[in-house]
Amino acid sequence: MIEVGIVGGTGYTGVELLRLLCRHADVRIRAVTSRSDAGKRVDSIYPNLRGFVDVAFSEPDVEVLAQCDLVFFATPNGTAMRMAPELLDRGVKVIDLAADFRLKDAAEWAQWYGEPHACPELLAEAVYGLPEVNRAAIRKARLVANPGCYPTAVQLGFLPLLAAGLIDGAHLVADAKSGVSGAGRKAEVPMLMAEAGESFKAYGVAGHRHLPEIRQGLAEAAGAAVGLTFVPHLLPMIRGIHATLYSRLTGSPGDLQDLFERHYADEPFVDVLPAGSHPETRNVRGANRCQIAVHRPQGGDTVVVLSVIDNLVKGAAGQAVQNMNLMCGLEETAGLMLVGLSP
Amino acid sequence: MIEVGIVGGTGYTGVELLRLLCRHADVRIRAVTSRSDAGKRVDSIYPNLRGFVDVAFSEPDVEVLAQCDLVFFATPNGTAMRMAPELLDRGVKVIDLAADFRLKDAAEWAQWYGEPHACPELLAEAVYGLPEVNRAAIRKARLVANPGCYPTAVQLGFLPLLAAGLIDGAHLVADAKSGVSGAGRKAEVPMLMAEAGESFKAYGVAGHRHLPEIRQGLAEAAGAAVGLTFVPHLLPMIRGIHATLYSRLTGSPGDLQDLFERHYADEPFVDVLPAGSHPETRNVRGANRCQIAVHRPQGGDTVVVLSVIDNLVKGAAGQAVQNMNLMCGLEETAGLMLVGLSP
Amino acid sequence: MIEVGIVGGTGYTGVELLRLLCRHADVRIRAVTSRSDAGKRVDSIYPNLRGFVDVAFSEPDVEVLAQCDLVFFATPNGTAMRMAPELLDRGVKVIDLAADFRLKDAAEWAQWYGEPHACPELLAEAVYGLPEVNRAAIRKARLVANPGCYPTAVQLGFLPLLAAGLIDGAHLVADAKSGVSGAGRKAEVPMLMAEAGESFKAYGVAGHRHLPEIRQGLAEAAGAAVGLTFVPHLLPMIRGIHATLYSRLTGSPGDLQDLFERHYADEPFVDVLPAGSHPETRNVRGANRCQIAVHRPQGGDTVVVLSVIDNLVKGAAGQAVQNMNLMCGLEETAGLMLVGLSP
Amino acid sequence: MIEVGIVGGTGYTGVELLRLLCRHADVRIRAVTSRSDAGKRVDSIYPNLRGFVDVAFSEPDVEVLAQCDLVFFATPNGTAMRMAPELLDRGVKVIDLAADFRLKDAAEWAQWYGEPHACPELLAEAVYGLPEVNRAAIRKARLVANPGCYPTAVQLGFLPLLAAGLIDGAHLVADAKSGVSGAGRKAEVPMLMAEAGESFKAYGVAGHRHLPEIRQGLAEAAGAAVGLTFVPHLLPMIRGIHATLYSRLTGSPGDLQDLFERHYADEPFVDVLPAGSHPETRNVRGANRCQIAVHRPQGGDTVVVLSVIDNLVKGAAGQAVQNMNLMCGLEETAGLMLVGLSP
Repeated sequence: MIEVGIVGGTGYTGVELLRLLCRHADVRIRAVTSRSDAGKRVDSIYPNLRGFVDVAFSEPDVEVLAQCDLVFFATPNGTAMRMAPELLDRGVKVIDLAADFRLKDAAEWAQWYGEPHACPELLAEAVYGLPEVNRAAIRKARLVANPGCYPTAVQLGFLPLLAAGLIDGAHLVADAKSGVSGAGRKAEVPMLMAEAGESFKAYGVAGHRHLPEIRQGLAEAAGAAVGLTFVPHLLPMIRGIHATLYSRLTGSPGDLQDLFERHYADEPFVDVLPAGSHPETRNVRGANRCQIAVHRPQGGDTVVVLSVIDNLVKGAAGQAVQNMNLMCGLEETAGLMLVGLSP
Repeated sequence: MIEVGIVGGTGYTGVELLRLLCRHADVRIRAVTSRSDAGKRVDSIYPNLRGFVDVAFSEPDVEVLAQCDLVFFATPNGTAMRMAPELLDRGVKVIDLAADFRLKDAAEWAQWYGEPHACPELLAEAVYGLPEVNRAAIRKARLVANPGCYPTAVQLGFLPLLAAGLIDGAHLVADAKSGVSGAGRKAEVPMLMAEAGESFKAYGVAGHRHLPEIRQGLAEAAGAAVGLTFVPHLLPMIRGIHATLYSRLTGSPGDLQDLFERHYADEPFVDVLPAGSHPETRNVRGANRCQIAVHRPQGGDTVVVLSVIDNLVKGAAGQAVQNMNLMCGLEETAGLMLVGLSP
Repeated sequence: MIEVGIVGGTGYTGVELLRLLCRHADVRIRAVTSRSDAGKRVDSIYPNLRGFVDVAFSEPDVEVLAQCDLVFFATPNGTAMRMAPELLDRGVKVIDLAADFRLKDAAEWAQWYGEPHACPELLAEAVYGLPEVNRAAIRKARLVANPGCYPTAVQLGFLPLLAAGLIDGAHLVADAKSGVSGAGRKAEVPMLMAEAGESFKAYGVAGHRHLPEIRQGLAEAAGAAVGLTFVPHLLPMIRGIHATLYSRLTGSPGDLQDLFERHYADEPFVDVLPAGSHPETRNVRGANRCQIAVHRPQGGDTVVVLSVIDNLVKGAAGQAVQNMNLMCGLEETAGLMLVGLSP
Repeated sequence: MIEVGIVGGTGYTGVELLRLLCRHADVRIRAVTSRSDAGKRVDSIYPNLRGFVDVAFSEPDVEVLAQCDLVFFATPNGTAMRMAPELLDRGVKVIDLAADFRLKDAAEWAQWYGEPHACPELLAEAVYGLPEVNRAAIRKARLVANPGCYPTAVQLGFLPLLAAGLIDGAHLVADAKSGVSGAGRKAEVPMLMAEAGESFKAYGVAGHRHLPEIRQGLAEAAGAAVGLTFVPHLLPMIRGIHATLYSRLTGSPGDLQDLFERHYADEPFVDVLPAGSHPETRNVRGANRCQIAVHRPQGGDTVVVLSVIDNLVKGAAGQAVQNMNLMCGLEETAGLMLVGLSP
């Protein structure tokens, strides 16, 4: 049995980790910390976990966490980089679901996150936890940076095209739409149902923190810097991300459907839909899965890729469990054979 | 392995059965029938099942169904009563998720469903599949009438009070609210999102088909006829039923919280929340669970019970699997340890 | 032209007042105050008002407000009772959309609102602003307590029955459901879309502040104290209240449809729907209207009344404008001939 | 008084026309036709119109319609082209809210709409009813083709850039999202709330009927053929379109904010938001208004335009009333000074 701790268990990624881990046959949840709710039973705040999670939130305590095999950080940005070094030193594996270890360049991190990085020396070691790209490295990693939700959906959609060198990497467009749970469980007026319901808007057009993360991943796949216009939007629903990706073909691409199917043929959690499909976010709700379709409208020179995930699962907690499975030598799919809840 | 068939697999209760059964360790799905979609792969219509359900819809064929151990009818009212007799004769167990075998009185059935019953002789034998009431009989049954969604939520809420003889059974009020999936997957204008979204209404106040079913169950618990005002409402959401139940105390009730907790102490799928709770439908979304709270506002003589289920799970497919487990000698909870998907 | 001020213009009742008043032919908006947003243009926070409202929020200033003919308080409870006395002394009419002047009994007010009342001497003078009950008094009032949203929907539904003496006033049940805008524009976790969306729950079953207000109004209509069980619920939508009201007939009621139609025959904003109707909240969205239907299921002794309003219009800002029209000698319907926005 | 008729009054554009026209001071509604609902009162199907619209649906009758000054066709594609010629011959002005007269090329029309055009000779005469482009021609027109909802939002966003010759017209991208009311009031499974709610998908990526209409309008503005990738998506909400438009600058653009503000300076129904804004569909809900923002992320060579409308108002019925006002010599804004309903 793998003993795990969760730091920051009261947010949506925390509770989603608990939903997955409490039914994972190889895992025992040893500690769930929360500064704000320490002492309260987890299931008093999340009654969906009654009968499944029998612990109370505790204050974050390094001594307790150090006894775990692996610790998840489901905390705001800036927490994991302060606590992870000691845990790593004491032999604990770490997966950060926030952004602390996602960027390789400490200066860029500081620019986008507004403070100096607390342990820049770990940035090189940290493995970016997108198993479809870094599976071998994740198996050997002791520190994994779990990708952001938008970056997961966008990268999985562009990767086959970039890897095959078929598109103009200088002018990529990612028009992405997310359900409100992506904003977390923070009391903020714009996320009230009376504000976000029955309406739709873009946000962060001038620059969103996921932009450098996506660029970094795409550049690695392309073997060169890329130019990306990334526009996130807020959907009047709870779970789900839909990325609509536009790029221009630089030559004769051959059969794009076949390209995508071959690229992801062995991937358990990326599902290329039949030609002509339009993936729907509801079909991956609650599931650790990315469903993808590729289109070439009117046979022109623009490729359109449609990519959907559940932002809390393949975009956060599910991918973290997938990484844990790899890091701990478990079956990659353990605890993750989840059917999407539709309707 | 139990071999099962599903007749009428294209509706919401059908796809929900598939979601549960495809991950049930003791079950093999042998046939899924659909007149309208025969020949199409199930996962072409329900892409959430890709990789989990590998069959195509077939025409309903008694010869094939007769080879199953158990057949579920997820069909409109009036279908099961025409096909069940032959299957029963050939030794197949049957669970009807529609209403054909729910009422004991054939005349009452004919009055509410608008045609004579096709096999009234089976009404006495059919066991009403509410395990919290009829567990022993279900274990021995070959024909189970799976309860309606409203009747499940309403009966589970009233039963402890009626069984204890604490309330005036002549004037019960059940104000019930359901998500739109309760209406099924039929193309009807009032169920369009542009009609049912962002709005709320009652319907069927003059008389809803679930009324006689609920009355029958409550009368059995009370040991006498009951008077019930039942008002269903349509919620602008997909899954979930919330029943708010009002009744008047006839004497000094003692500790109602304790009464409810004791009544359901051994029930795996009924969860009495702590005193003062307000159950939320989202906490049972996707789960085979009824969460209940009991209140006595201002210490007066009116008891208010709040009862929530997922109409497609404990209100339909989940309860059907629970009944199958009992009928087939499996662990009652097999395949049903589902955590509610919240948020 | 009537010159008006709005104190507390950044909440939902404030912006709704602005929506109505900016198109009211007889009104000029002189000041809109907000402590939190003073100095900002109103339409920078509410872009739907661009081109219609050309002012900035100001600090609340009695000198400015004293120059208005009438001041609306769209503030939290406890504000109007501190500012209204001076404005009244200086000849300004006041309408409070909060609860400060709704209860006649200062002790009861203190009990439900958690502090002593600041000007109990005004409670007797204040007129409860339900025009369907108090039209004549409102015309002459200088201080009007605008009713709460639930109390408007519930009272308008029960009044014809109580006035006619047809029902048992000791055991009334009001099962009420509200959209999330009723909770106001406060940053609170339970009102996040990820919490309140796609779910349904009751709240405040032990006792909601609108309970004494409703009881007071119903008692006045009945000519005797009433017993009321009031259970509010939160709907996963933005605007609209639906009250489902249950009461027991004490004798032979005659034609209830006719009773309701006659009771409201001359009311411009109460619309009794044809027999057998089920009012939908969307049909009154944005409109200053209550739509009502009365049912007697199966001809039994329980009457069910269905009553819908837009909580921000007939339940708040629209009713306030209606009261302003009456207080200022304008046509009662001026600025209020609004068609519900459906779909 | 202008006497108008509405052919096809039971759909969403029909009822929205009624909502606007019943409060228009210069209009009298003479006939509202519906084959399916002839004989029924309009307000029995649309109770939001009770007290405002006092007529019944009638069978479409050319003799009655011919007595109107102007007839709106709120019918499915293919109806207006069969009835309009006779009405025009008899001196009646016609506005078609469907697509019959939107394309100038009869062959292209036949290709996209699947049948030959019934009166190709009228295509040249018909004026495309986008007042921001064709105001003078609309004033003199007897036949106006009211633009589609997507085409309105997309064209208003691209026009200033194309007119100024600033962008590469060969590679335009329009990522557009629409609420479900855009699909009309047809009973179809994909538009059920249980299907379209809490989910998001693209559709028609291979080719949507609005594509040639948009291309035609943009080409006219650009003075040359354009290349457009148009991807529509379905939003889980009722009203509103958000178009996110991507194009590449071909040179140094100067101040884009200023360009947009000057381009629309005199337009009553196009509102360019301050620099840095993110328009929200809710702010134009129910209003005849397009709100637009222009961005140049990171100062790069990609321009992003955000454009929102209410698909039933500026995208259909409101724009039709605007056209009627122009055609009939009324004030262009008559009956259209509507404030968006937010929240």
